[in-house]
Amino acid sequence: MTRVRVAVDAMGGDRAPDEIVAGALRAVDEAGVDVVLVGPESTLEALLPDGRTPPGVTILDAPDVIGMHDDAASSVRTRTDASVVRCADAVRDGLADAMVGAGNTGATMAAALLRMGRIRGINRPAIAVPIPRPGGVPQLLVDGGATVDCSPEWLVQFAAMGRAYARVRLGVDDPEIGLLSNGEEPGKGDEVRKKTFALLTGTPGFVGNVEGRELMSPRPDVIVTDGFTGNVALKSLEGAVRTVADMVFGVLGRDELKDAARVVAPALLEVAGELDPDVTGGALLLGVNGVCVISHGSSSARAIVNASRLARDCVAAGIVDRVKESIGRAG
Amino acid sequence: MTRVRVAVDAMGGDRAPDEIVAGALRAVDEAGVDVVLVGPESTLEALLPDGRTPPGVTILDAPDVIGMHDDAASSVRTRTDASVVRCADAVRDGLADAMVGAGNTGATMAAALLRMGRIRGINRPAIAVPIPRPGGVPQLLVDGGATVDCSPEWLVQFAAMGRAYARVRLGVDDPEIGLLSNGEEPGKGDEVRKKTFALLTGTPGFVGNVEGRELMSPRPDVIVTDGFTGNVALKSLEGAVRTVADMVFGVLGRDELKDAARVVAPALLEVAGELDPDVTGGALLLGVNGVCVISHGSSSARAIVNASRLARDCVAAGIVDRVKESIGRAG
Repeated sequence: MTRVRVAVDAMGGDRAPDEIVAGALRAVDEAGVDVVLVGPESTLEALLPDGRTPPGVTILDAPDVIGMHDDAASSVRTRTDASVVRCADAVRDGLADAMVGAGNTGATMAAALLRMGRIRGINRPAIAVPIPRPGGVPQLLVDGGATVDCSPEWLVQFAAMGRAYARVRLGVDDPEIGLLSNGEEPGKGDEVRKKTFALLTGTPGFVGNVEGRELMSPRPDVIVTDGFTGNVALKSLEGAVRTVADMVFGVLGRDELKDAARVVAPALLEVAGELDPDVTGGALLLGVNGVCVISHGSSSARAIVNASRLARDCVAAGIVDRVKESIGRAG
Repeated sequence: MTRVRVAVDAMGGDRAPDEIVAGALRAVDEAGVDVVLVGPESTLEALLPDGRTPPGVTILDAPDVIGMHDDAASSVRTRTDASVVRCADAVRDGLADAMVGAGNTGATMAAALLRMGRIRGINRPAIAVPIPRPGGVPQLLVDGGATVDCSPEWLVQFAAMGRAYARVRLGVDDPEIGLLSNGEEPGKGDEVRKKTFALLTGTPGFVGNVEGRELMSPRPDVIVTDGFTGNVALKSLEGAVRTVADMVFGVLGRDELKDAARVVAPALLEVAGELDPDVTGGALLLGVNGVCVISHGSSSARAIVNASRLARDCVAAGIVDRVKESIGRAG
């Protein structure tokens, strides 16, 4: 069986290139993929063990790097030598089966969208972000920030794509889809939500409106929203988790509690690991004509291994074809 | 000095009428207010100590009760004998200086809006929800759910009202206002946010866009958003805090950790208390021509005491006049 080839943007992310390259090299063994390292050749070669390209690794030279604060769309349009653009080109041209990027999210999305193209029948892309849940498989939020202004029709497409992806990502046969709203009752929501609710009613898996408190909860499998609301909700969760964790470890750091803290801290850190974004494997950009996994900006080597594993599984499951089929049915 | 008179919807909330009446009676001493208990006379009399009305308490008969699942607007329009409607009437007619309600939030808002009326120059009301922060005064989210579809001009009004209220509520002279968006850069946001950002630029206290992770953080004092996004963000926070708290206490409940847990649990519960919504005092409905404090649905007696105290402070500070002035300046 041919190994899946993953193009990794070696220059993207707060800890690039060192951690990204280290993760990509580990992915060859740990995720069982071939890796195409994309970035300035001399920079990458200096990071290889003994300066040699190991088996399963190739280097694709890309002299330019789009930074975290560069304008995404215009940079991708004009800077065709940039590592993230060459990653997307590698997928488009068949040099790789999937790409992984941890850099400027806007640029990664723009590169995938502009170089791989959109799937016919999809108006706008959406990011399927895995939301960690205690002790279980993650929940998928679609859209986590790709398309900020959404029509009801686009949200319906997000639901169809999210359902197709949930089968692959969560291993659920009949994924449940909820529409994020300001109340569970059918009449709740702004104008966009009310129209979307009407369009989704009766479609497979649709369970109705869900509130923000259903994020991180056992049900549903997929929560659909526009990219603006999705981004706000994700960052609200992230901030709250961090605030509470800081409070807990602040208490455990007190002098008078230190003996007891030494007993409970390892178990607390272990369950906290269930919420670690490095473990979840990254987000998938849905609606583009290729596999593009977006890992978070502070990705460690471990995050890149997990993102590569996710990319491999998406390629193996034929996710692009599954999404195409879902839209054919929905349309 | 005349005591502030607070009309309490005795029938609103999951724990009504017992906890609500108990809280209202305690508020006479603990918040130093006179209380008008609003609900079915015989029900309320049965809950009074020795069946007698204590000093500082009066009963206002309201035979009807709007339930949690009744349609808010139509119920308020047609059921003028309902306790929440009579509360708002009491404020409008000068029988009380403020109202406190913990029932159906939509009905409480509708009653205040329809019976007290809107402040001239305000197009739509907004709820200022206090977001607890560890060890500090709360942050205010405006709007927490009153107006789900917002124009940029209405969001600018929310900012002006929020700033006026933050002076009273947080005791800050020059409150900072952030616009909730999907990134901090000025170009971020959906169409509504981009237009709002342009209108707010240069107005006093405006610090620009803020992300969801700034909720619960030390800055800014006020975060402005539409009621749809605000509700989703609030409930996302609430769900995340609960999930993490459940994980922590789940670990501490393990047999092998029980001795250490006994040492750290009291300190953890104490800091968790800083996030307890019963303590924050409730949300204020901004933009109506009277003081209406909305307490959460599961309000305990303690929550009602704190909501009454907030109502008293808002009356004493002349919040309605302060909001009118802020709109005069902004308009």
